[in-house]
Amino acid sequence: MVDKKQIIRETDDEARALARRLISGSRYGSLAVLLPKGGHPFASRTAVANDVDRTPVILVSALSEHTSGLMHDPRVSLLLGEPGKGDPLAHPRITLQCQAEKIDREDERHTHVRSRFLRRHPKSALYADFPDFAFFRLNPVSASLNGGFGKAYHLQPQDILIESPASASLSELEDSAVEHMNNDHADAVAIYARIIAGQKTGKWSISAIDAAGFELVSGDRLARVEFETVLEDSSRLAPTLAELAKSARESQG
Amino acid sequence: MVDKKQIIRETDDEARALARRLISGSRYGSLAVLLPKGGHPFASRTAVANDVDRTPVILVSALSEHTSGLMHDPRVSLLLGEPGKGDPLAHPRITLQCQAEKIDREDERHTHVRSRFLRRHPKSALYADFPDFAFFRLNPVSASLNGGFGKAYHLQPQDILIESPASASLSELEDSAVEHMNNDHADAVAIYARIIAGQKTGKWSISAIDAAGFELVSGDRLARVEFETVLEDSSRLAPTLAELAKSARESQG
Repeated sequence: MVDKKQIIRETDDEARALARRLISGSRYGSLAVLLPKGGHPFASRTAVANDVDRTPVILVSALSEHTSGLMHDPRVSLLLGEPGKGDPLAHPRITLQCQAEKIDREDERHTHVRSRFLRRHPKSALYADFPDFAFFRLNPVSASLNGGFGKAYHLQPQDILIESPASASLSELEDSAVEHMNNDHADAVAIYARIIAGQKTGKWSISAIDAAGFELVSGDRLARVEFETVLEDSSRLAPTLAELAKSARESQG
Repeated sequence: MVDKKQIIRETDDEARALARRLISGSRYGSLAVLLPKGGHPFASRTAVANDVDRTPVILVSALSEHTSGLMHDPRVSLLLGEPGKGDPLAHPRITLQCQAEKIDREDERHTHVRSRFLRRHPKSALYADFPDFAFFRLNPVSASLNGGFGKAYHLQPQDILIESPASASLSELEDSAVEHMNNDHADAVAIYARIIAGQKTGKWSISAIDAAGFELVSGDRLARVEFETVLEDSSRLAPTLAELAKSARESQG
């Protein structure tokens, strides 16, 4: 048998960028948990958002089998990368090996995680506050990226997560920054969607901002814009957004 | 906490029909296995076909992590149901809890499973016969159907599998029946695709026939036609196919 290590490619910036796109750009994924009785694996579909450090966040009901599983054993696996049309094995996807962490309502991160999730998935507002529902962060331990047939990579958390000293203060100002952009700079938001994210149709609004970029939603569509460099200071956010809008406008001639 | 049994609906014919459509109509799925070292769950995307009894069949490489997992512990979970556009949680899907069973090249079922898989996934002919690749039947033990928010059902193998005394003889004549239909009755095949399966575009051919119906492929698209009743005798196949074509033609007026 061929040595498995031979088929794993060396992780490069292209692989990291693809992994980040898949993690930040997936509205849903396949979650694998271990069932409490006997540890049989169990796969189910779940809506996904991202926390400020790009960690996937899910909203699940305690009445579901996957939640029983991850409450009993926090080891879960999350497959991300929406296949779309054509050969499903030609579409890139990533498997994250994670430790699930419940975000209780009393947790200081709860408000922030909730507003990010609800802006990406507005329909989830119907049940997000039901007593049996809870948010979980799925903290990545390792990842397997499959960029298409024969293009396999092993990645570490630092390859995919956003690490910045600005993350904490960006979290605090995110809600107001998102509101400000959508209400007072709708023209810039439309330009980000059309010129930078290449979305030809749809009415887009910003749903999340972090140190590495921001995301846009239009109904059930999702787009992500990555900044050229990760912001090290939250005071860089406003000028970075202004520069992006300016250069996008100029690119149109 | 609410009793979980309250949210599981009683299995009816509509639920069974939806489950069968999802299992027979999915070109790919999310496979959850247990990793050999430590039993961490691992989710990955896999192409899927069906054996003559509707049991899912996968073709996997021994070099992949999912194959290491299912060789070590045959307990796997398979999530089927392609989400498409719109709200991913509104699309029906099914989770099958299975026991994986390797189909060795010496196995009398190998030729048949291989030809079914390759007709559905023609591109897999490029690697299906590589020494590290093997077919596995994923024998269902139980299933969880989610027909959309709040519509949950528990199903048993007999709710989803095809059981007929005709299955063995249909398996034997399937290759030649498929070839005959595609070559000598291309007009009927086009009518099945357009009128019965409702496919407005594409050049379709039959890729599988069993006691409960047949499947059609056109490039990366897949459609399934279920017979009104399961065939109990393989001699019923030809007249059933002829009647279907006749009534479809008449429905056009």
